[in-house]
Amino acid sequence: MTYDSLDWRLDEDGVGLLTLDRPDRLNAMNWQVAEEIETFFRTDALSDEVRAIVVTGAGRAFSAGADLDAAEQVFAYDRSLLEILDKFRERYDQPPYQQKVRDGGGRMTLAINAVPKPVIAAINGPAVGFGATMTLAMDARLMSSAARIGFVFGRIGLVPEAASSWFLPRIVGLARSLELVYTADIIDASLALQYGLVRSVHEPDRLVEEAMIFARRCTSDRSPYATGLTKRLVYHGAGAGDPLEAHLSDSLATYWASLVDAQEGIAAFQEHRRPRFTGRASDIPDLF
Amino acid sequence: MTYDSLDWRLDEDGVGLLTLDRPDRLNAMNWQVAEEIETFFRTDALSDEVRAIVVTGAGRAFSAGADLDAAEQVFAYDRSLLEILDKFRERYDQPPYQQKVRDGGGRMTLAINAVPKPVIAAINGPAVGFGATMTLAMDARLMSSAARIGFVFGRIGLVPEAASSWFLPRIVGLARSLELVYTADIIDASLALQYGLVRSVHEPDRLVEEAMIFARRCTSDRSPYATGLTKRLVYHGAGAGDPLEAHLSDSLATYWASLVDAQEGIAAFQEHRRPRFTGRASDIPDLF
Amino acid sequence: MTYDSLDWRLDEDGVGLLTLDRPDRLNAMNWQVAEEIETFFRTDALSDEVRAIVVTGAGRAFSAGADLDAAEQVFAYDRSLLEILDKFRERYDQPPYQQKVRDGGGRMTLAINAVPKPVIAAINGPAVGFGATMTLAMDARLMSSAARIGFVFGRIGLVPEAASSWFLPRIVGLARSLELVYTADIIDASLALQYGLVRSVHEPDRLVEEAMIFARRCTSDRSPYATGLTKRLVYHGAGAGDPLEAHLSDSLATYWASLVDAQEGIAAFQEHRRPRFTGRASDIPDLF
Repeated sequence: MTYDSLDWRLDEDGVGLLTLDRPDRLNAMNWQVAEEIETFFRTDALSDEVRAIVVTGAGRAFSAGADLDAAEQVFAYDRSLLEILDKFRERYDQPPYQQKVRDGGGRMTLAINAVPKPVIAAINGPAVGFGATMTLAMDARLMSSAARIGFVFGRIGLVPEAASSWFLPRIVGLARSLELVYTADIIDASLALQYGLVRSVHEPDRLVEEAMIFARRCTSDRSPYATGLTKRLVYHGAGAGDPLEAHLSDSLATYWASLVDAQEGIAAFQEHRRPRFTGRASDIPDLF
Repeated sequence: MTYDSLDWRLDEDGVGLLTLDRPDRLNAMNWQVAEEIETFFRTDALSDEVRAIVVTGAGRAFSAGADLDAAEQVFAYDRSLLEILDKFRERYDQPPYQQKVRDGGGRMTLAINAVPKPVIAAINGPAVGFGATMTLAMDARLMSSAARIGFVFGRIGLVPEAASSWFLPRIVGLARSLELVYTADIIDASLALQYGLVRSVHEPDRLVEEAMIFARRCTSDRSPYATGLTKRLVYHGAGAGDPLEAHLSDSLATYWASLVDAQEGIAAFQEHRRPRFTGRASDIPDLF
Repeated sequence: MTYDSLDWRLDEDGVGLLTLDRPDRLNAMNWQVAEEIETFFRTDALSDEVRAIVVTGAGRAFSAGADLDAAEQVFAYDRSLLEILDKFRERYDQPPYQQKVRDGGGRMTLAINAVPKPVIAAINGPAVGFGATMTLAMDARLMSSAARIGFVFGRIGLVPEAASSWFLPRIVGLARSLELVYTADIIDASLALQYGLVRSVHEPDRLVEEAMIFARRCTSDRSPYATGLTKRLVYHGAGAGDPLEAHLSDSLATYWASLVDAQEGIAAFQEHRRPRFTGRASDIPDLF
């Protein structure tokens, strides 16, 4: 697959670097870019050659969010849909809802979240609007000391999207979530770190390399099969009603992992050697 | 509406200050005060003239919680209700459950949470029992350096109420929640800040002004319509089972916001001018 | 009840110390130890003489997790169960699922979580694998400055178990949870404290005493009945969909607490004397 607005390269160790690549537009999104991103996470990202994905931006920005010069395209909803809006929840993935009512940001973040392997944001420069919320669906956020991030929707009469109302409170807590979206401030890296919005701050010229190193820590000598199940478990558990639900799910995941890679993992541990895992992320079962 | 135990004044910019006004009783609650508070948040607070609400206490306390001198009134439950207690969940808002079984604190915090605009606690002095839990349903907490806060229920054989078991873990996490309610300690402002229970600590004579400034940061040049939807989304997302649920809700909210104020917001942003939003909080639809 | 692998002693003030007592095996788990732990939390721990429980390890480790020398026993799942795995969720507590599919770690942590009184981990030395996840179901974690903790499952092709995917995100947040399980690092006490994974760090020779002191702070002059309800409310609220659910539950809990110990608690407070509570943890009703 080739992309117009994305640059995708894969290391030999399976860590890929996806670069949002419209630097002249500060890597802003329009429908075409959004479709490329969703396609990437629904296709190339799922290849078993890919063990983890680092996402960054070309040029000085991470992403300016929705391209407001294309706003008529992005935010001009069809008022006639009001008549059938009450059916949206049950038919959201059918026409006309799929294209005309579903938030494009959420289509992307659900695709990111569905990738059963680590996805890591390397926030190299300003990340605002969807440029900020898209990173919430990634599993870790590293930030350049020169970057800033802001959930600016309130400034333009909009609401936080991209399923951010699920991710953000689970990352920074409820009170800081409300503050970030009410003030709509664009905060710097040190405040983002203090809020727990990002895991670490790095010198600009070290950022992507540090993100790649972190990605390798999450994948080297790991079973992609067990890692995929682990990702599913943690996100599911973070939304589950009670520990019993997590118990039922992790019982099944342990059963599957034991059939696939755990015997080898334990043997390697006991023999003081590196494991030779064979499980594939693409084979993980549905646990829920 | 006039109140015996509350003082309510509204700035010309729409930021209101609600003062719990029984300083001789340390702003403690009895049924009459509770009813006034619930009435305030179900009526005056919903007026579209009101853009945000700061809540503080008159005199040296924020609130001493339930007025224990009226405890016979507040905590004397009717044992004969035991026979019909099994029907409480389905009939909680009907007699006799509505008045005789429902926790009065929860009736107030649900009313606070239902206000689709920022509600901000300015904790000027001791906040204990319901005086502490009522602030959890507010969207931000600022605290005087001289104030203290404590979930003291355990000291008198009671349990944390006012739906605090939903709010507290989402603000400070599960482990700190358990510690706060098990120890029932009354903690000072610096520990409250360290725990993330309050967003900031201020000099006593600056507290209310700082809370008003914060309220203005959340409302100035904002669409009340989009802000109301935003509040609904964040609380709903914090309790939702999975990101898809948030996606369906924020798709609908984005649709509505786009019809109401987003076009103006984007135009103003592009024209480098202040937006003229017309949407009203009282018009937001039910998203869920 | 006597145990082969556990040491259990109860202070006269009702604070018990449970010591994992296979120091030559670093207090690792096999099926026999797991069964003893589950039995302890389903029997002795529920005695009304027991007001709180501190859990620590004998010797230099807290617990090395599953005894990998018994791994064939622990992780050798029966492939023939695949045929009936689709019925697991509805029949998880019946044969053959109860013994052959359910994760043994989760059986223990659900038993720990079901104890309606404070359970406190005193992490005296390395806590890895289930040695780490078992502490997540406890209500507070104190840690020796010499101890380390790690969710190492990924290193051996396994997944985090013991319902940890429910507990961990609610203690340290979603992003740190993912980092801890992806990296599978064994972290030291100061990082565990910084992450909010433990509440405090202590000198090794002070750890257990500090945990006992903390346990007494949670139980002295407290109603075991109200404390039991409080624990149920906080865990339930942390997983509940919305504040209304917490309101319905804490209304019922307040009703019950008022019938049992609140009148005495309020009277003692007003008379400036210590309360004489009579409620028992074993009598708390099912609220949900």
